Amino acid sequence: MDRCKLRVYPDGIEGFVEKDTTILEGLEKLGIKLETLCGGAGWCGQCIIKAIGALSEISSNEKNLLSEEMLKDGYRLACQTVIKGNADIEIPPQTRLYAHQILTSGIALEKAKINPAVNIYKIRLTPPNLEDQRDDLERLESSIGSKILVSNLDALRKLPIILREGNFDIEAILYGKELIEVRKPNNKPLYGIAIDIGTTTIVAYLIDLTKGEIDVASSMNPQAKRGADVISRIDYSAKGGLQELKDLVVGEINLLIEELCKRQGIEPIDIYDVTVVGNTTMMHLFLGVPPNYIAISPYIPAFTKSLLFDAFQLGIHINPRGKCYIFPNISGYVGADTVGVVLATGLYKGDGVKLALDIGTNGEMVLKDGDKLFACSTAAGPAFEGANITYGMRGARGAIDHINIDDGKINIHVIGEVSPIGICGSGLLDAVAVMIELGILDETGRIVYPEGKLIKDLIRKSDNGLEFVLKANGGEISINQKDVRELQLAKSAIRAGIEILLEETGRDYSDIDTVYLAGAFGTYLNPESAVKIGLLPPLPISRIYSVGNAAGEGAKLALLDKDQRKIAEEVSKKISYIELSSRRDFQEKFMEFMYFEIKR
Amino acid sequence: MDRCKLRVYPDGIEGFVEKDTTILEGLEKLGIKLETLCGGAGWCGQCIIKAIGALSEISSNEKNLLSEEMLKDGYRLACQTVIKGNADIEIPPQTRLYAHQILTSGIALEKAKINPAVNIYKIRLTPPNLEDQRDDLERLESSIGSKILVSNLDALRKLPIILREGNFDIEAILYGKELIEVRKPNNKPLYGIAIDIGTTTIVAYLIDLTKGEIDVASSMNPQAKRGADVISRIDYSAKGGLQELKDLVVGEINLLIEELCKRQGIEPIDIYDVTVVGNTTMMHLFLGVPPNYIAISPYIPAFTKSLLFDAFQLGIHINPRGKCYIFPNISGYVGADTVGVVLATGLYKGDGVKLALDIGTNGEMVLKDGDKLFACSTAAGPAFEGANITYGMRGARGAIDHINIDDGKINIHVIGEVSPIGICGSGLLDAVAVMIELGILDETGRIVYPEGKLIKDLIRKSDNGLEFVLKANGGEISINQKDVRELQLAKSAIRAGIEILLEETGRDYSDIDTVYLAGAFGTYLNPESAVKIGLLPPLPISRIYSVGNAAGEGAKLALLDKDQRKIAEEVSKKISYIELSSRRDFQEKFMEFMYFEIKR
Repeated sequence: MDRCKLRVYPDGIEGFVEKDTTILEGLEKLGIKLETLCGGAGWCGQCIIKAIGALSEISSNEKNLLSEEMLKDGYRLACQTVIKGNADIEIPPQTRLYAHQILTSGIALEKAKINPAVNIYKIRLTPPNLEDQRDDLERLESSIGSKILVSNLDALRKLPIILREGNFDIEAILYGKELIEVRKPNNKPLYGIAIDIGTTTIVAYLIDLTKGEIDVASSMNPQAKRGADVISRIDYSAKGGLQELKDLVVGEINLLIEELCKRQGIEPIDIYDVTVVGNTTMMHLFLGVPPNYIAISPYIPAFTKSLLFDAFQLGIHINPRGKCYIFPNISGYVGADTVGVVLATGLYKGDGVKLALDIGTNGEMVLKDGDKLFACSTAAGPAFEGANITYGMRGARGAIDHINIDDGKINIHVIGEVSPIGICGSGLLDAVAVMIELGILDETGRIVYPEGKLIKDLIRKSDNGLEFVLKANGGEISINQKDVRELQLAKSAIRAGIEILLEETGRDYSDIDTVYLAGAFGTYLNPESAVKIGLLPPLPISRIYSVGNAAGEGAKLALLDKDQRKIAEEVSKKISYIELSSRRDFQEKFMEFMYFEIKR
Repeated sequence: MDRCKLRVYPDGIEGFVEKDTTILEGLEKLGIKLETLCGGAGWCGQCIIKAIGALSEISSNEKNLLSEEMLKDGYRLACQTVIKGNADIEIPPQTRLYAHQILTSGIALEKAKINPAVNIYKIRLTPPNLEDQRDDLERLESSIGSKILVSNLDALRKLPIILREGNFDIEAILYGKELIEVRKPNNKPLYGIAIDIGTTTIVAYLIDLTKGEIDVASSMNPQAKRGADVISRIDYSAKGGLQELKDLVVGEINLLIEELCKRQGIEPIDIYDVTVVGNTTMMHLFLGVPPNYIAISPYIPAFTKSLLFDAFQLGIHINPRGKCYIFPNISGYVGADTVGVVLATGLYKGDGVKLALDIGTNGEMVLKDGDKLFACSTAAGPAFEGANITYGMRGARGAIDHINIDDGKINIHVIGEVSPIGICGSGLLDAVAVMIELGILDETGRIVYPEGKLIKDLIRKSDNGLEFVLKANGGEISINQKDVRELQLAKSAIRAGIEILLEETGRDYSDIDTVYLAGAFGTYLNPESAVKIGLLPPLPISRIYSVGNAAGEGAKLALLDKDQRKIAEEVSKKISYIELSSRRDFQEKFMEFMYFEIKR
């Protein structure tokens, strides 16, 4: 195996990695994890690095996502660039802004024990004789040292023949105590797939069950063509589209599995276990269970607890006798993905007051105080995902994603370093924070000319009233009064949710030791801006951590360590769900936190 | 519902039964159970009664099985004759010879508690509201008072819709804790099928799981065309015929289920549970598991323990989520049918020394002494089934089935009261016993002229040497030296097996309190003859009981009462299997019991 030397700047780290791995993988081997939205699939353009040395050709993804100028300067996407020899790599601060925070703060996600639900027993049995007439199955049981459950016939039908063809050398694959497969010794490892079904994105992680993650693939949830959000999907499902939505997500997952298998040169038949997280509606649609009553008061799902099925029953193309573990949900609007976050962050354990927050169209949050866990969900609206905002867009090329004021100068960052075509959630958050900082917003959220001084070119009148103008790379977009109102609705809904959870535990926000921000928006937002606009309580920034796709991390944990499933089940039962829709105090807080706090 | 009065002679019993039931069913209602080989299917001709009154027309089965003269005299088949009004019935002694013995001796088979594995919960749930947002499944769980296992999706997919369509009135069908089905309240009972797969015959019992047996159907095992016995079927299976043999037996079972459903006007979808007994090879073939290594030393089956499968996995046409319970086997040649016998006879419990014996091509036997249980199997050969005997045949019309000497006169009974065309196992047994009685056999089994007196017409010389001549109804058949030798081989194999079991427990035959004779041959043989020829040890006849198809009874028990399955599993593990093929003492005993004991 060829080994290549990597030097990483500005870290000053040097080390060897295998030839033909990507820079993203190589860096991870050296202990440097870059956070990416797409998990290394090549479409989010987040893992920008500068690299010189023996590297693969520039890929079409890189051509799409990086400007010509950047490519000329040696910028590459770490996930797309394959190491062919020694190389020097420079990681720009922007690329690991939050990853860095996670790593240096010592707040890593839970580490998985290798303790999978499915195991391989490599056995040499003593052949039978007239003094030892135990049947084949019993012989296997004695050797494994436990009773075997036979609930499918495939393995049992093979057992007598394979035993004798292999001269009583055999590999038996058991899921818990259930016999899944018998085969002649071949030393192939067992694989698993952890799946995070988002309303927008599906991510699948390929796991070697003896080692850990080896690859990831992601794609858009194809159900999106039948509705962008959960409610419109439930509506489509209730009108006869359930089977179609189920088939769409299952089909897409099968494509991801196929892609992962091809890339890694493994057979789908060697995948024996799958774990799945997602919001409650996604879990219903994935199983083909009608989610109809989640959409209407009192918002009742058909099920919330964890479930286990044979993969073939779900149409998932792995070993047909492999299993599919469905994470438990908490309520109609706090789903299995939130349980994944709780698992991955370790929120459920230890002392202190901790808050986990996953913000999308809905904001799901869990507050932990000692032994107590409370969760709620608020309809934040899609402002943070760029929808309903005049220039709103997802966090892709051309989106303003970060704005700050440095020494009175406004710095604006555009994904792909191009002329801006819109603004994404994290950019909007920063923009409003900057507007507050500059005195362009009053406490009710009205856009005003700042008192005293007039900042030229930053504010102008238009048909929509006053606008805040953002100029970068020779282009511009603007934020108007309606946009600010959308953001106010979103942030106050989430903040009110946090305050209700604090009230349930009798705590003040200052008691919160740690806030975990999960999901794409949570990863890319600037915590200072979140505090400034009042989305988060005024906590010291050092207590706030972005944890990336913690839901997916939870699914991986449960794949590698079956005990994590028990924890997920116990924790999901322990979490008290607070229904906000009927609470007058939530409405009051929602009104209260609509306002901004302006320091003068 | 019309009720008809039955008067039964010579019992003097009177009672009412429903119109349109058969006489067989009607008699059973009145407490009189006629033993039949075919379980009331109409082909064995065993349930002959005399009947006068309002009855159905003579059926084609009756025309085939009863002579014109008998029909003229008012003889009918009880299973074929439908009660249309009041009737008088006379039961000839022959018809209930052994049934009578079972009933009057107080040795009835075990009575089943009604405690099925599958249960119906009729529930009215409290609808949810904002203060009680439990999901549908959890709501069901609370109402049932236990956790529900969901391992198939069909029921879960229906649950939310059915709950609301029925205004939260629901019937949930659970197999143990597993959710099998949900439906709107309809009060239909749950049904089960108990199946006994014999090498020759398949019997299926339809059971109302709230009441007990309601119907039975039987047919020949269609695998017979690929070999009459277990060894030739294993051979055919090993040469690529496994799938065909599996499909044959499964197809035939499905036909029986269809027939039962049609007859009783029920839907196969309302059948939720199946129990199956049979010999070890039949169990393998039914499941499509290669039985190859049962046929060759050291005779190893792929499995012996009990198994449970979804019916759809086995291709059995009941509710696809219904279950199929496979009885445990003991060894390659002591199968699930023997476990059924042990269960039905209650052999495993109580004090004393008890022996259960099931004689066919193989003789399987279990000896119980206190806490110990020993089993063995001997290759008896097919003599008792009529094969390899010059005039041998199965117990059908034209077969001599009983012979005795009364006041020096030889009485010969032919099934169907016709001229004899052959002799069946019970007839052969009687014939040899009579030969011993008359001094026609010496102790080595040689046919001799009786000393002192010559019995005219009973013995003659032929090309085959001396023959014993049996004349009846104007016809005759004969027993020759070769026939006697075949019987000697068969009886000594079984007797030697019994003696080995006694030796294992350190008991003498006289310690045996009870002998249960199971199966068709066991039902119809004359115990006195069995003792006389040395098939059974010289026990008082009062200790010997015929118990009919006890294997099938065991399957019924386990269907009605799930605790019987636990007992079957415990008992099957407790039984020590004695392999006779390698034992010199068995060979010695086999030689020893080849002889007859002649009293002079």
